[in-house]
Amino acid sequence: MTSFDSLWAVLEPIGRNAGTGGYRRFAWTGEDATLREWFAGEAASRGMEFVVDRAGNQWAWLGDPDVDGPGVAIGSHLDSVPDGGAFDGPLGIASAFAALDALRDSASSGFRLSRPLGIVNFGDEEGARFGVACAGSRLLTGALDADRARSLTDVDGTTMAEAMAASGHAVEDVGRDEQALHRIGTFVELHIEQGRGLVELGRAVGVGAAIWPHGRWRLDIAGEANHAGTTRITDRRDAMLALAHVVIAARASAERHGAVTTCGKVMLQPNGVNAIPSHARAWLDARAASPEIVRAVLAEIGAAAALHGGTVVEESWTDRTAFAPELCARLSTLLRDAPVLETAAGHDAGILAAAGIPSAMLFVRNPTGVSHSPSEHAERDDCVRGVAALATVIEDLAG
Amino acid sequence: MTSFDSLWAVLEPIGRNAGTGGYRRFAWTGEDATLREWFAGEAASRGMEFVVDRAGNQWAWLGDPDVDGPGVAIGSHLDSVPDGGAFDGPLGIASAFAALDALRDSASSGFRLSRPLGIVNFGDEEGARFGVACAGSRLLTGALDADRARSLTDVDGTTMAEAMAASGHAVEDVGRDEQALHRIGTFVELHIEQGRGLVELGRAVGVGAAIWPHGRWRLDIAGEANHAGTTRITDRRDAMLALAHVVIAARASAERHGAVTTCGKVMLQPNGVNAIPSHARAWLDARAASPEIVRAVLAEIGAAAALHGGTVVEESWTDRTAFAPELCARLSTLLRDAPVLETAAGHDAGILAAAGIPSAMLFVRNPTGVSHSPSEHAERDDCVRGVAALATVIEDLAG
Repeated sequence: MTSFDSLWAVLEPIGRNAGTGGYRRFAWTGEDATLREWFAGEAASRGMEFVVDRAGNQWAWLGDPDVDGPGVAIGSHLDSVPDGGAFDGPLGIASAFAALDALRDSASSGFRLSRPLGIVNFGDEEGARFGVACAGSRLLTGALDADRARSLTDVDGTTMAEAMAASGHAVEDVGRDEQALHRIGTFVELHIEQGRGLVELGRAVGVGAAIWPHGRWRLDIAGEANHAGTTRITDRRDAMLALAHVVIAARASAERHGAVTTCGKVMLQPNGVNAIPSHARAWLDARAASPEIVRAVLAEIGAAAALHGGTVVEESWTDRTAFAPELCARLSTLLRDAPVLETAAGHDAGILAAAGIPSAMLFVRNPTGVSHSPSEHAERDDCVRGVAALATVIEDLAG
Repeated sequence: MTSFDSLWAVLEPIGRNAGTGGYRRFAWTGEDATLREWFAGEAASRGMEFVVDRAGNQWAWLGDPDVDGPGVAIGSHLDSVPDGGAFDGPLGIASAFAALDALRDSASSGFRLSRPLGIVNFGDEEGARFGVACAGSRLLTGALDADRARSLTDVDGTTMAEAMAASGHAVEDVGRDEQALHRIGTFVELHIEQGRGLVELGRAVGVGAAIWPHGRWRLDIAGEANHAGTTRITDRRDAMLALAHVVIAARASAERHGAVTTCGKVMLQPNGVNAIPSHARAWLDARAASPEIVRAVLAEIGAAAALHGGTVVEESWTDRTAFAPELCARLSTLLRDAPVLETAAGHDAGILAAAGIPSAMLFVRNPTGVSHSPSEHAERDDCVRGVAALATVIEDLAG
């Protein structure tokens, strides 16, 4: 049993739904607190300095990045989408601790750090609770305004400020954290691949080169509440019917432009079987190879929404992010010419890259390509290969 | 201030949402318990015998229907749809107590009951929590199987049996209640009109003659959970997109056949912004002037659902219900040739009529026709006219 196996065995049951096998690890909840305690414990057991930045992200440092200059940071996130998989996020953190353990255990190599090494757990990467993805890294870099973040609400009306405060985080300090940013010389995030690129190439590990531009939009359509039986068809303003038209229009637009759009979250009011919906709120996720394509799709969706009395408001937007080209090339060479891939999924590494921090990603093969699902999976042997790759990267960048 | 005004003032705040002004009075909840306590208190303060039948419906009797033969029952329900109005249900019960008070107060009339008089609060008429409308009256008559009712679940997975038990109802006794049924010689339910029939006729009170056939169907569509960004359009099985197609097909079918269909309640799994929906569950309500029309519409909806990998299961069905013709004619004559109307809304009076109990309804004018909405409204003067009409009916049938 490797260090990775031990780490994984502890993480695996936390926040898992016995019925679906999927995970519900939402930011600033009880499950999140358990995961954060686990992270702090792993840091302490390795003699690392544990700090929480102003944005609520957790850091474990070996060496002092304030004294010895910016270090090499690795890590990912521990939160999940609703009924998400076990690997999206946690694989990067478990692999980070396991890679450090592997380097320390290989006594013959005489491994010593030449630069500080940090392991990070970015908070609220999925945005499952408050609707903004990569909230922790965006707050850290200032890409997400602190006041806006504090006032974001979950489905129960709890604000992010209230949720952070309930978890003991200093809400008034939330915001861009210069000191924490200065500590990061280079960031490398290991992540399960969300697609079948590595399967098709027959490789266990790849290097992420760019993230497609992507964003989230909130769609609101007002109807008129009324009795489902006694209201004539011609008298109805049915928000669900209007939403159905917009969802179909969004898909057609995506197909026309070679983009992807998803309506994954819907809330009807009053959501009663015998009441005509008075309001439909839905969220649209849209991504494409270029920002121009995403904008063209959104223009068409906005027009469809307006036709049905709806409005579309941008909740988040991330431009195309290219990771540091020299760093990507170096990692690819290091890892026996590992393939270099683009992805349509957003990541904290993309947020740091956009803020000017040299960043890159490692992807671990996903046999089915399925992600954000209980059936998301990576083979144990591929996970171990990912740990070895990450150890190689640390040795190169900080050894 | 009349007795009606006092009764209404106490009922009005119970279960009202301060934000929307709508009501959330769901079966076997805290709000329901408060309403039930109110009912029992009103019964006691009038010296009426208070009994709860095996189905959980509350009865207040003046005179002994077991000894003096079946009586005249009046009443309605106190529960609501999500964000429903104040009148749908409670108007019938407040009017019942107020009509009795009016008859007793008119000392000069020398009013005495010749038959027992019952006032009833039918439980769970809207089916907002467990999905089956008129659950209380259906259980009473046996139209709803007791085992099926006990196993119905709400959105939190609580069964009706658990909810009833938590409210102190003897769950093992639930079922058709012969004794309670034998007590009802005639049933008259006063209700706010859900439409503008009386407005168009310029009358405050009308008589209900029939209820359109109507039912509820549950639609389940399986998708495949996957990442909203990284899954190619052609690889997706998106349950929300499929639902949108079925919703639009249902509306088109209703228009073709002159029926009404509504998709008022939707639940997506996992309901995350960046996850393709793995499951969509929705409820369809369909009504028309004849059962043949409803069946034709449902056949088309079922075909549309099947085309998108979905299934449609009937959750409730109520055939066309004609109220007792002689009773309707008598009430219309009594109330100065009150207009006789059909309605597309289901009511407990329809369930009793279908079980062979002579039943009828009185409708009170609704200025906008809006119902199942916070803006549902009846003018106070029309409510008082409804009370007077109900008093006239009691005097005629039981005076």
